[in-house]
Amino acid sequence: MSDKPERTEINTLGEFGLIDHLTNPIKSINKSTLVGIGDDAAAIENGDFVTLISTDMLVEGIHFDLMYSPLKHLGYKAVTTNISDIYAMNGIPKQITFSMALSNKVSVEALEELYEGIRAACKRYNVDLIGGDTTSSLTGLVLSVTAIGQGEKEKIVYRSGAKVGDLICCTGDFGAAYLGLQLLEREKQIYLSNPKIQPNFEGQNYSVGRQLKPEARKDIIEAFQQNKLVPTSMIDVSDGISSELHHICKSSNVGAFLEESGVPIHPDVEMLSIQFNMDPITCALSGGEDYELLFTIDPNDIEKVKYLPDIYISGEIVDASEGIKLHTKGGNIHDLTAQGWTHLKNKD
Amino acid sequence: MSDKPERTEINTLGEFGLIDHLTNPIKSINKSTLVGIGDDAAAIENGDFVTLISTDMLVEGIHFDLMYSPLKHLGYKAVTTNISDIYAMNGIPKQITFSMALSNKVSVEALEELYEGIRAACKRYNVDLIGGDTTSSLTGLVLSVTAIGQGEKEKIVYRSGAKVGDLICCTGDFGAAYLGLQLLEREKQIYLSNPKIQPNFEGQNYSVGRQLKPEARKDIIEAFQQNKLVPTSMIDVSDGISSELHHICKSSNVGAFLEESGVPIHPDVEMLSIQFNMDPITCALSGGEDYELLFTIDPNDIEKVKYLPDIYISGEIVDASEGIKLHTKGGNIHDLTAQGWTHLKNKD
Repeated sequence: MSDKPERTEINTLGEFGLIDHLTNPIKSINKSTLVGIGDDAAAIENGDFVTLISTDMLVEGIHFDLMYSPLKHLGYKAVTTNISDIYAMNGIPKQITFSMALSNKVSVEALEELYEGIRAACKRYNVDLIGGDTTSSLTGLVLSVTAIGQGEKEKIVYRSGAKVGDLICCTGDFGAAYLGLQLLEREKQIYLSNPKIQPNFEGQNYSVGRQLKPEARKDIIEAFQQNKLVPTSMIDVSDGISSELHHICKSSNVGAFLEESGVPIHPDVEMLSIQFNMDPITCALSGGEDYELLFTIDPNDIEKVKYLPDIYISGEIVDASEGIKLHTKGGNIHDLTAQGWTHLKNKD
Repeated sequence: MSDKPERTEINTLGEFGLIDHLTNPIKSINKSTLVGIGDDAAAIENGDFVTLISTDMLVEGIHFDLMYSPLKHLGYKAVTTNISDIYAMNGIPKQITFSMALSNKVSVEALEELYEGIRAACKRYNVDLIGGDTTSSLTGLVLSVTAIGQGEKEKIVYRSGAKVGDLICCTGDFGAAYLGLQLLEREKQIYLSNPKIQPNFEGQNYSVGRQLKPEARKDIIEAFQQNKLVPTSMIDVSDGISSELHHICKSSNVGAFLEESGVPIHPDVEMLSIQFNMDPITCALSGGEDYELLFTIDPNDIEKVKYLPDIYISGEIVDASEGIKLHTKGGNIHDLTAQGWTHLKNKD
């Protein structure tokens, strides 16, 4: 390869910018390709049904740290985070493929633990492991999971369907997985500086559990089905509510008005954020890895979600010209920036 | 994670042994899962059609060397080798996902080249790039490609359908990609020992091309369609004919009688193997990365392949009790061992 005079560093574009830059000239040829890059999962037409495909790559030292991530949990998390993307399309995950690159330092027993976690997640979510690839790595462990799901064509929910006047809803609570990670990182540093001090996670099971072994919201998708509710748009929250709400607004060409009081936060997050000298709402909006669902509904459907457990009304979709705003509990209105996970992480 | 007393090294099991060991307790739950682990691609039922899924992971330093693999070729090869698995099921590739983990040393311009190769392959094979994941790597480049294809349920060809009396057929020629790699490795070592000596690939375009930019046998699958031929079993040749024939025999519970004279070898391979002091048939049987098709047909279908270009009759399927044998040009009969790619590589 000849050296080229120009050299643009990747970090000048950012992750989303880089993907846009590389994939922008790509147009679909096959008419079965309903949606390609740019949603939680790709959608492929198969008669009245749609096949949904989502894929993630997890790299040791970037996405997980084997010092505090048990391999069983890692296998479980690798599966659940991927099928979360299928649920985010209002689909049902059916199959996964699991590939890994591994160094010689990994023993067969360690891989058995990893696969125990994969199998546990497959069982919990009724998903079949149908393939994969196993290869060598010169350094750390790399995992790649592809989830395959199915949905009825009329019921697939994209990021792009939000309309002015729609209600913004979310599930569960936010910020715990982020703070769980901060806790794990802090205890790791303490341990590294003095291996005689054992990690202290007392009373922090919730946040640590949310980080190490997240679940996907199968129950919510089933509740939608039972209540004949089809959201107008949906996304799963892997990078924090702010970032995901920006994705919905960009895809739907709308704005949003988010109520701070409508963002559910677990009591443990309120307490733990004080320890880390952080604002709980910042952790909730920008933390990431919650794997909850953020979605919009037609206001006429409000009765369908009002009495459903673990669903919260968090705001309203407005005209694009009004921007994306946060209405704080103190009564102030701020621009909601799309601070993702990475940004927050770099700040620490 | 508590340290366990037992520790089994991965290499005691080998790649196929390891996969068997980890995936053996896995049973499918969803009835749409027709075939999971153990064929070129997984097969998922969708009405009268079958969705085929195949995935590969490619690791820098293991599967490719950026010293001699241009990124454009690498992108092209990552796509073609995956869709070759879809053709090996007698299906038509329709979509791919492409994920990568990359270090900061990769520039945006380098990624543009990689994507140029991906796009070229997508165009050549009428495939849509529908998704993927882009993440950081602490070391080298890791690529993961998933190919999605479609086929008519009645025409999907598995590894398991070979019957006693079937004819063994193959396409193209064998051994060139392996020798191309030897050539690239040799010239790399010469260059490393004295950077003033430029690599010499004169007259070796064929073998080097087969290594760096392999094609998948779209033409053969189209010829099957036109001639209404459905092979009884099929596999693509990524690890050498020997290894692939063992896969077919194991899955179909049969034996095989392979004719050395029925294994096509390109004249360049005959010449080049002399340079490397190797037997051309060894390169053909155990070399790998040819991405040709190895398949079996009902003997009544012989007229359908006899006059098709680039298809060769190489042997016959026999009873499992007769084993897997090679009939040499010299008239000897040997056991055909399943020497894969890795084995050969380690020998050098």
